[in-house]
Amino acid sequence: MWIAELSRQTEVPVATIKFYLREGLLTAGESVGATRARYDDAHVRRLRLIRALVGAGGLSLARVRGVLSAVDEETRELHDVLGTAHGALIPETIEASPESLQKVDELLTDHGWLVDENAPDRALLASALDALEKVGYQLDSTLLDTYLVAAEQVGNADVAHLPTDDRAHTVESTVIVTALGGPVLLALRRLAQQNASARRYGAVRGRPCP
Amino acid sequence: MWIAELSRQTEVPVATIKFYLREGLLTAGESVGATRARYDDAHVRRLRLIRALVGAGGLSLARVRGVLSAVDEETRELHDVLGTAHGALIPETIEASPESLQKVDELLTDHGWLVDENAPDRALLASALDALEKVGYQLDSTLLDTYLVAAEQVGNADVAHLPTDDRAHTVESTVIVTALGGPVLLALRRLAQQNASARRYGAVRGRPCP
Repeated sequence: MWIAELSRQTEVPVATIKFYLREGLLTAGESVGATRARYDDAHVRRLRLIRALVGAGGLSLARVRGVLSAVDEETRELHDVLGTAHGALIPETIEASPESLQKVDELLTDHGWLVDENAPDRALLASALDALEKVGYQLDSTLLDTYLVAAEQVGNADVAHLPTDDRAHTVESTVIVTALGGPVLLALRRLAQQNASARRYGAVRGRPCP
Repeated sequence: MWIAELSRQTEVPVATIKFYLREGLLTAGESVGATRARYDDAHVRRLRLIRALVGAGGLSLARVRGVLSAVDEETRELHDVLGTAHGALIPETIEASPESLQKVDELLTDHGWLVDENAPDRALLASALDALEKVGYQLDSTLLDTYLVAAEQVGNADVAHLPTDDRAHTVESTVIVTALGGPVLLALRRLAQQNASARRYGAVRGRPCP
């Protein structure tokens, strides 16, 4: 297909497609003459992935580039692709106190989670606990356990639902579910808080509970 | 205390404190002479809250302002404060398909969740489902149910753990747990995925599983 059709199928403007081509996020089409190129379904799929990561996923283009290079590197172990996708989703520099880092280590050990000792999410979790403590909010162990159990259910289900038909599909799905499942979970948590709050405080925006 | 002491206690640079004062995020201190002002513990607490929301919470200053004005409005119902805090955490414009909006409505009705019909998180959840579908990822109903059950456990625990001693403390805690609990949950989910992936693919960065 020509670029106009690629644009139509993906609802991405031609100018944006050209930008992604220049930035190397999208591989070039097959040249036909000096100024035209043909594109195929792989381009459609890749463009949709980029849009999902940038849009609902909220990733910067630099981070999308990191994720896509992991997707394209065929020699990567599947488990490493997950690590790279995670790395692209979190800040590059994370500061956490030794106390919180140790707390996270103990938590993961207590629950028998197999997590690489250099996984940046260890430090990110520790820094989030630091932030809570600094602001005087006590995330007590009961509440933290509730978070952990809920996260385990979701994380297990995410990985169990990954397709096994072919490697490219598995890798792409790993990236998608990691990046787009997060917003789903956060929106559901806020809706659940609203439900719990309505029941506790007895009103939905001034209306009495049924 | 003088501004230097306020800076020391909160680890926020004096220039940043002055910026927050100009921007109206922090109320002015008690004037002492023409150029000096005294600050108190309420300023320490407010500064820590701002830093937590901007830092670990990842909120823009405009969004922090919105959250703080809800915190300060003493006539607000507690349930409404939660809604305002949620509003500050999500995009202002959300596009979602009628099909996904209906799916979300049905989901909330099926589970008997009391959620205001205009809650922006309904649309946000629907748009996240749209993004997943566009990219060809099937978030099947089993997986979505797992997310929902996990979110319900966390949301219920969040609200149940809110302090009840005084209104200001409850409101502040509502904002904190909403904004900072999200990053905790997402980090735990990614760590859980890594654990599940290590078990499924049999390795942690090349090391065999025990």
